[in-house]
Amino acid sequence: MNPELLQRSLDGRWADVRTSVREQMARFTPADPDLSREEYRARVLELMRALAKTGQPHRGFSPEYGGEGDVGGVVTSFQALGYGDLSLLVKAGVQWGLFGGAVQVLGTSRHHDEYLRKIMDGELLGCFAMTETGHGSDVQHLRTTATYDADSQEFVIDTPEPGARKDYIGNAARDGEMAVVFAQLVTQGSTHGVHAFLVPIRRDGTPAAGVTISDCGHKAGLNGVDNGRLTFSGVRVPREALLNRFADVAEDGTYSSSIENEGRRFFTMLGTLVRGRISVAGGAGSAAQKALTLAVRYAERRRQFADPATGQETAILDYRAHQRKLLPLLATTYALTYAQDDMVAEMHRLQKPGATPDEKAQRDLESRAAGLKAVSTWHATRTIQTCREACGGAGYLSENHLPALKADTDVFTTFEGDNTVLLQLLAKNLLGDYGKTVSRLSKVDLARFLGEQAVDAVAERTGLNRIRIPGRGLDPRSRAGQRALIADRSDHLLAGVARRLRPALKKGADQFGIFNAAQDHLLEAARAHVDTLVFDAFVAGIKRSDPSVRELLGRVCDLHALSVIERDRAWYLEHGRLTTAESRAVTTAVNDLCAELRPHARLLVDAFGIPEPWLACPLLSDPAAETTTENPAPALVG
Amino acid sequence: MNPELLQRSLDGRWADVRTSVREQMARFTPADPDLSREEYRARVLELMRALAKTGQPHRGFSPEYGGEGDVGGVVTSFQALGYGDLSLLVKAGVQWGLFGGAVQVLGTSRHHDEYLRKIMDGELLGCFAMTETGHGSDVQHLRTTATYDADSQEFVIDTPEPGARKDYIGNAARDGEMAVVFAQLVTQGSTHGVHAFLVPIRRDGTPAAGVTISDCGHKAGLNGVDNGRLTFSGVRVPREALLNRFADVAEDGTYSSSIENEGRRFFTMLGTLVRGRISVAGGAGSAAQKALTLAVRYAERRRQFADPATGQETAILDYRAHQRKLLPLLATTYALTYAQDDMVAEMHRLQKPGATPDEKAQRDLESRAAGLKAVSTWHATRTIQTCREACGGAGYLSENHLPALKADTDVFTTFEGDNTVLLQLLAKNLLGDYGKTVSRLSKVDLARFLGEQAVDAVAERTGLNRIRIPGRGLDPRSRAGQRALIADRSDHLLAGVARRLRPALKKGADQFGIFNAAQDHLLEAARAHVDTLVFDAFVAGIKRSDPSVRELLGRVCDLHALSVIERDRAWYLEHGRLTTAESRAVTTAVNDLCAELRPHARLLVDAFGIPEPWLACPLLSDPAAETTTENPAPALVG
Repeated sequence: MNPELLQRSLDGRWADVRTSVREQMARFTPADPDLSREEYRARVLELMRALAKTGQPHRGFSPEYGGEGDVGGVVTSFQALGYGDLSLLVKAGVQWGLFGGAVQVLGTSRHHDEYLRKIMDGELLGCFAMTETGHGSDVQHLRTTATYDADSQEFVIDTPEPGARKDYIGNAARDGEMAVVFAQLVTQGSTHGVHAFLVPIRRDGTPAAGVTISDCGHKAGLNGVDNGRLTFSGVRVPREALLNRFADVAEDGTYSSSIENEGRRFFTMLGTLVRGRISVAGGAGSAAQKALTLAVRYAERRRQFADPATGQETAILDYRAHQRKLLPLLATTYALTYAQDDMVAEMHRLQKPGATPDEKAQRDLESRAAGLKAVSTWHATRTIQTCREACGGAGYLSENHLPALKADTDVFTTFEGDNTVLLQLLAKNLLGDYGKTVSRLSKVDLARFLGEQAVDAVAERTGLNRIRIPGRGLDPRSRAGQRALIADRSDHLLAGVARRLRPALKKGADQFGIFNAAQDHLLEAARAHVDTLVFDAFVAGIKRSDPSVRELLGRVCDLHALSVIERDRAWYLEHGRLTTAESRAVTTAVNDLCAELRPHARLLVDAFGIPEPWLACPLLSDPAAETTTENPAPALVG
Repeated sequence: MNPELLQRSLDGRWADVRTSVREQMARFTPADPDLSREEYRARVLELMRALAKTGQPHRGFSPEYGGEGDVGGVVTSFQALGYGDLSLLVKAGVQWGLFGGAVQVLGTSRHHDEYLRKIMDGELLGCFAMTETGHGSDVQHLRTTATYDADSQEFVIDTPEPGARKDYIGNAARDGEMAVVFAQLVTQGSTHGVHAFLVPIRRDGTPAAGVTISDCGHKAGLNGVDNGRLTFSGVRVPREALLNRFADVAEDGTYSSSIENEGRRFFTMLGTLVRGRISVAGGAGSAAQKALTLAVRYAERRRQFADPATGQETAILDYRAHQRKLLPLLATTYALTYAQDDMVAEMHRLQKPGATPDEKAQRDLESRAAGLKAVSTWHATRTIQTCREACGGAGYLSENHLPALKADTDVFTTFEGDNTVLLQLLAKNLLGDYGKTVSRLSKVDLARFLGEQAVDAVAERTGLNRIRIPGRGLDPRSRAGQRALIADRSDHLLAGVARRLRPALKKGADQFGIFNAAQDHLLEAARAHVDTLVFDAFVAGIKRSDPSVRELLGRVCDLHALSVIERDRAWYLEHGRLTTAESRAVTTAVNDLCAELRPHARLLVDAFGIPEPWLACPLLSDPAAETTTENPAPALVG
């Protein structure tokens, strides 16, 4: 098998971008962990300027302003930064993804003409000031106000209460000169909901008049990013500072918008920013890949305890417990890599220059981004934690990269949308689609539909029965069987939660009580939906791959699918989807697959194609960690 | 209910020690996270000297040398340090627990007379140099040598290969003047296995002749501890440097030991050091308690998203998903607190001055310490991670304590014995006891015993059937039912793994293959054993408590037990222990208990009695994080 063909499969649609980023990455060597916070911030700023010179960040912007309109490419290149310094990834994400992205997507030519070129080149550094101390997840109810003063034709930006302080804002504490500030727009005595405004916050290092800036201080990780807090007191910006793609205020203060419904307008504005979540999911994926590469390579060279038969010490990756720790995570990392590439491709299709707007597809993408961001970042947290432990004391030393990977990515699960809130958002969208299906049905059809639901379990069992082997049950390695189990669970959970929530639609119902009692069910339905789309993406990715690598990828896919099914096997048993013998066979198959894939583990991590300079560390090179001399054999048993 | 009675129950047998440590802790305020590594090390050294002045560390040493012989008390006081700066906890643990403990326990009066007083007072700082780069877990095969030279009556300490370098040694990089060095003892041409030697490594800041010291550098956490590496080249120490409680070398080089078998001698020496593991388990418990206190108090004051019925924003702890995240972890933290206190009491009974040696009880304690250390530290890692996420962005800021808690305790799962290796050790001891039971049986009895095993599942089901309510199945809140389920699983797993490993005892068997195929089973058996002892400790702890707090503690115990059963419900279903309806009832009961305990959550964390100065942070005090103003109601459903 040609290892390059495996890498090509993983590299996906923007393989060329990955190649070019890999070449450029060599100049961005890791920072000394002993740098002080201010030194580290200065260094990351320097790296960011170097990154601007490579032209990578320009890739995503509109060709009219010197970009390439390669929306998928820029997100792919951003992801690859996850192999390196994650502070650079996040600071670059704030500058070009969030700040630059908001100006491009929410602004119009008056903003583009003036700012886009400077933003791309890193001449104008900016912030994305959305989150407030009091309202992190519930952005629709943030409290900062932008009140239009028709006399001066200015908006006046104010922080009306301590909780309305903008918080955790990247680029704010040190470097940002301007911010896209999200605030409740007030004009002619009416509030029109959240809008975005371009507000200068600092010039030559000094805060602008009326702007108070403070520093979030030391953080668990990402200390190369200058997160800060902003409060505004009567800060005046011209009427044109409103990013007015979706709504505008006339000179006399008259408000107008192409989207009449305030809620829909808010979600449309927010939706254009989906790229941030997609990028975070991708960055998490890169970090998980890097952690696994370190842990697998270490586990191949590290030996501990002698085999009684030979007296030779055993490589720790030969132990079942160690395989169990690392290889299912590796398989899922593969699955998520394909799912991510699919999501980026869909985003590219919808957002590339000249794309036809497709509201339904855009909403589906937002749902998918919410779900995949949650699942990918939790997966990264768990994977990096496991890899750190799998490298023992060496994994705790900063020289071996794992501490920074863990600390820097830890916030991914709660920024760009808290994972629990995101899964809830996905579930609500799924329920909406489900509800529409139900509402479109005639009374007769509805009765039939609900009747079908009642026999749903039976129907699904029958479906599964069709692929059961008489006398042996389900074959754990049957792709159709895996698909049926994973997708069934998703469908069943969604239908169940829809039934549980239906009473909330009645007048006078205890909406909160009904919703809250079903919240864990709702979140599980969302997670199961993501499981299905990830599985499907992996299967499709294998089909697109060179035939010579499909057999190996197929086994990785088996391991991914079966470890997902194994994780949820209590549910399958409770719902009569698996017999107890079948459930135990799943566990056996996971063990067997770990043993089968163990000889390929090194190849599988090498195919991520992480540049060696970003992996180099004593963990992988120090000869002292390798022990190959013989030992007297200890008794393993008894 | 009197909250103090709840705290008294948790405080356990050494409540007085806790009270005195709480009072003294006020002077050890948290370190500025922006301190450089060297500044932080200097600060922790200063704190350590202040700690020595409190007399707490003396508590554990023998009364002959100015201590109090209060073995349980000193471990309890060490645990309480876990509320504060964990670098101080670890550095103190190295100095008084490991270094001082080794001198006391492995040495004899010649060492005690010369060193103990200086060690207690912190005048002589030392290291515990066991782990080598090449052999972390497999300590029995470490490579450092101590070769006796009869001519000069000295031992010559050598690092014969790069992998024999002592690694991750606390107190080595900066402050330690002496080390207890573990090395293979060689005399008269024979090797006698691992022994401990007192070796001077530094004087007035300069490494001793032949000793090379390097720095492990920056770590994920615990940067106030100066971990380093030691290599020895022909370092000569007098014959008396051997810590000779269990073995000695005469002037002429003749080796003698009170324990003939080399393996048994090694494990006896190692076993005396069980205190380290017990202390780490306790420190992890304190850290988990602190994280939960922060997260629960935050979740009570933090509100997000309005209730449609009232327009008032909902406290995040009122959401089921949030309760599900925090409250089962809180319940298990309670359970582990009681289990820890029991373990400390047993250690005290066995190790207090004048205790009668009891080899079997000591071995059981070592098993228990191995298991509880693994379970408690994994629990802490998971709990702190969950609490960090439950506090969102605020949980990522160092000012709010959670980042240091996470980073500092992360290594607990792999130091003082890697958790996986420790569970394996426990399992092997359990199997040994099991094997002895089997081997003591006559042929007739054995046949009956094995016959019983074959019908084991049936027998257990019958046992469970006796407590089933006709038509309703098992009552999830039946204490007897919980006990039967948890203990059954442990027994069944152990019997099963014994059966699987039996073929390995045959001559010529593929020992490694058989062992490795059962490794996951083995580890699960060990974990299940710990589940049982933790459950039993909680139940016993409730019985010892004031009657007025038993009802509440009972519900916490229900939540702990049922979340353990819920976690493993696939196993219970697969093994016919739970019906599908009963399994689903377990999940319902966990949800109900979360809702029932939610109003008591604050009381439950306050009962840990963590001093307020160690909790104080913006997360708990910043009014900006609290939002109580009304919001228009968003649609929760549809």
